[in-house]
Amino acid sequence: MIKKGLLIVVSGPSGAGKGTICKNLLELNPDIKISISATTRAPRKGEVEGVNYYFISNQDFEEMLQQDALLEYAKVYDNYYGTPKKYVLDNLEKGNDVLLEIDIVGALQVKDKFKDGVFVFILPPSLEELKNRIVGRGTESNVDIEKRYGCAIEEIEQVIKYDYAVINDDVDRATKDVEAIIKAEKCKVTRVHEDIKSIF
Amino acid sequence: MIKKGLLIVVSGPSGAGKGTICKNLLELNPDIKISISATTRAPRKGEVEGVNYYFISNQDFEEMLQQDALLEYAKVYDNYYGTPKKYVLDNLEKGNDVLLEIDIVGALQVKDKFKDGVFVFILPPSLEELKNRIVGRGTESNVDIEKRYGCAIEEIEQVIKYDYAVINDDVDRATKDVEAIIKAEKCKVTRVHEDIKSIF
Repeated sequence: MIKKGLLIVVSGPSGAGKGTICKNLLELNPDIKISISATTRAPRKGEVEGVNYYFISNQDFEEMLQQDALLEYAKVYDNYYGTPKKYVLDNLEKGNDVLLEIDIVGALQVKDKFKDGVFVFILPPSLEELKNRIVGRGTESNVDIEKRYGCAIEEIEQVIKYDYAVINDDVDRATKDVEAIIKAEKCKVTRVHEDIKSIF
Repeated sequence: MIKKGLLIVVSGPSGAGKGTICKNLLELNPDIKISISATTRAPRKGEVEGVNYYFISNQDFEEMLQQDALLEYAKVYDNYYGTPKKYVLDNLEKGNDVLLEIDIVGALQVKDKFKDGVFVFILPPSLEELKNRIVGRGTESNVDIEKRYGCAIEEIEQVIKYDYAVINDDVDRATKDVEAIIKAEKCKVTRVHEDIKSIF
């Protein structure tokens, strides 16, 4: 029997730095499979189809919804975002760990379905720093910045629904925290039943 | 307000290697405070007073029991073992992490009192290897070896009462697992309330 992989959900407000942490994590742990979300929003400068997102039309997204082909989805800032189900389930079944980097609305939907997923919330070191990061990204209009910042504050309150909170005051340290969380979760007694049986 | 330290309880059957793992852990993390147990058994070859144990008389041990000065205690193989309470509580209060390397009977007593302690069970890679290690230690008589081995098998069944299980097939890897468990526990949302408040 193949031991199922671990579902790791990394989430947090815009500007907390979840993208950078996930990028580092995957570089250091090439065995982890990243789930690529589908979205109807336009690509930002530098974003690549199939790497950052699958950029699809509204019509295609709504078809996936009808076919129940999404693990979670959300409409945020007038755009759809969602996680194609098949890739995630197939890899977990094969024993691969799967990383989801998704927003908070989506993460909480996944949490309802995957009780044994690991839910990590990335926090900015301060609200001031969060705003600086959103502004510094330079990819959003002023209206969008204020919208994102306002939402971020509300979103941070959702941290209590997660298993772990990692403060991103230093990307390397924060990445190591997430690595430790994954390693520790694999040692949980509730997950190692098969390993224990093999001792006897 | 000082954030309280973490109580880490490392436990497991004789011969699983919890002693070596704890030694490694302390060398790599000199900030962790180790609680020294008191015992009425005779020192084994090479054991040092106040380093491996406080070797005390039966009378002194029973006095500590009467004064409720022990966090846990057990009578194992006709000898008392116990954890002096003061050192542990004082250090946790100061914000220091405290490591207890204790047997299973004691660990389960501590678990009743410290709901937020972290309980790690060290497992041998196999029962054969466990027996080899007990024999290889060369500090016990044949009768004691059989006694320890028989108890070890019963003890392993207690693993389900712990939070984490670490298989000691490689001491360095097992030590890293325990380090990851400590780091992950400090990221648990239930433990970082104060850090989250400081963001706002």
